[in-house]
Amino acid sequence: MNTNNLPSELLENAVNQFAKLPGIGRKTALRLVLHLLNEDIESVKKFSNSFIELKSKVKYCKICHNISDKEICPICSDKSRNSKLICVVENIKDVMSIENTQQYFGVYHVLGGLISPMEGYGPSKLNINPLIEKVKNGEVEEIIFALSATMEGDITNFYIYKKIKEFDIKINTIARGISVGNELEYIDEVTLGRSIINRMPFKAQ
Amino acid sequence: MNTNNLPSELLENAVNQFAKLPGIGRKTALRLVLHLLNEDIESVKKFSNSFIELKSKVKYCKICHNISDKEICPICSDKSRNSKLICVVENIKDVMSIENTQQYFGVYHVLGGLISPMEGYGPSKLNINPLIEKVKNGEVEEIIFALSATMEGDITNFYIYKKIKEFDIKINTIARGISVGNELEYIDEVTLGRSIINRMPFKAQ
Repeated sequence: MNTNNLPSELLENAVNQFAKLPGIGRKTALRLVLHLLNEDIESVKKFSNSFIELKSKVKYCKICHNISDKEICPICSDKSRNSKLICVVENIKDVMSIENTQQYFGVYHVLGGLISPMEGYGPSKLNINPLIEKVKNGEVEEIIFALSATMEGDITNFYIYKKIKEFDIKINTIARGISVGNELEYIDEVTLGRSIINRMPFKAQ
Repeated sequence: MNTNNLPSELLENAVNQFAKLPGIGRKTALRLVLHLLNEDIESVKKFSNSFIELKSKVKYCKICHNISDKEICPICSDKSRNSKLICVVENIKDVMSIENTQQYFGVYHVLGGLISPMEGYGPSKLNINPLIEKVKNGEVEEIIFALSATMEGDITNFYIYKKIKEFDIKINTIARGISVGNELEYIDEVTLGRSIINRMPFKAQ
């Protein structure tokens, strides 16, 4: 189906707005807009206003910059966690993924994005300075980088590393290698090559 | 990733609203909401208001009930088309699909949905009565049903058929059978069985 000639400008506008979202093409956008059009006006208002309300009222934890309804998020205010062990992540989704592993007992620092020269997204837009302040103030013993294994992730890792390497703290990154359950023949060559170079002691479990 | 424990009610609300849309799960919803959150407030307002504006200002063609910015849509006002040949479709997407074939020169009647007993969606919510009025008033020579080959489509076909069968008009449905390019071994048995029963004269093209 060709979706280029919609018979209404209002419809065209709504479809265009949806199609701006990542992973949503014009066909999907049209399907979603027609679904909304079948709802009553109150439901459409609830749908639409939820995003305006989120954007205008959202708060971030003053310590880790994660999205939070309180000034200090539940993770940062948990006294049983090690506040000198900081895991650096891109966004709230990564916090949730790591929390779900139940293997981490430090705190987080949420950057709010990655440095992306391609998209003109520079370090000044990210929460990098507050992290460096924490390091300078001696509030940190160990940093763990947990950013995506992409060009943007690597650039961001390196940028922060340069700023904090002079301080006497441990700087680690999460292990990269072969995923649990992966068959060797389906692994890409870069990952396989690096996992041979970075081989680690065998532990019988 | 488990998305059940979002650390903010505003975020939770926005994710829930997105996840109500068909084909959007909570993971995708969270991804889309975080994308919106990285936009500035003006963009978020534009996004949100486009749906409210569409819903509150949308107009439908008085003849065929398709979405249209004018009182009478371009198809219905096209004098070169046969207004006594009416193709009955579910929604605007189907109009666009059939228009793209460039094989149809009649007009449409858009129902705005299908009868769905499972979802409590009855005939009174659809534009069925205006179609029956057209038939009663002698404005129709032929009806072509072009609804989905689903239970809902079949029920809707049958409901309308019962209401108009007493009138002296041709009542057809689009041909069902084997799609162009399909290999026989991959076709489901119901379709294959019906296409043998409904075999048609061979035409050398």
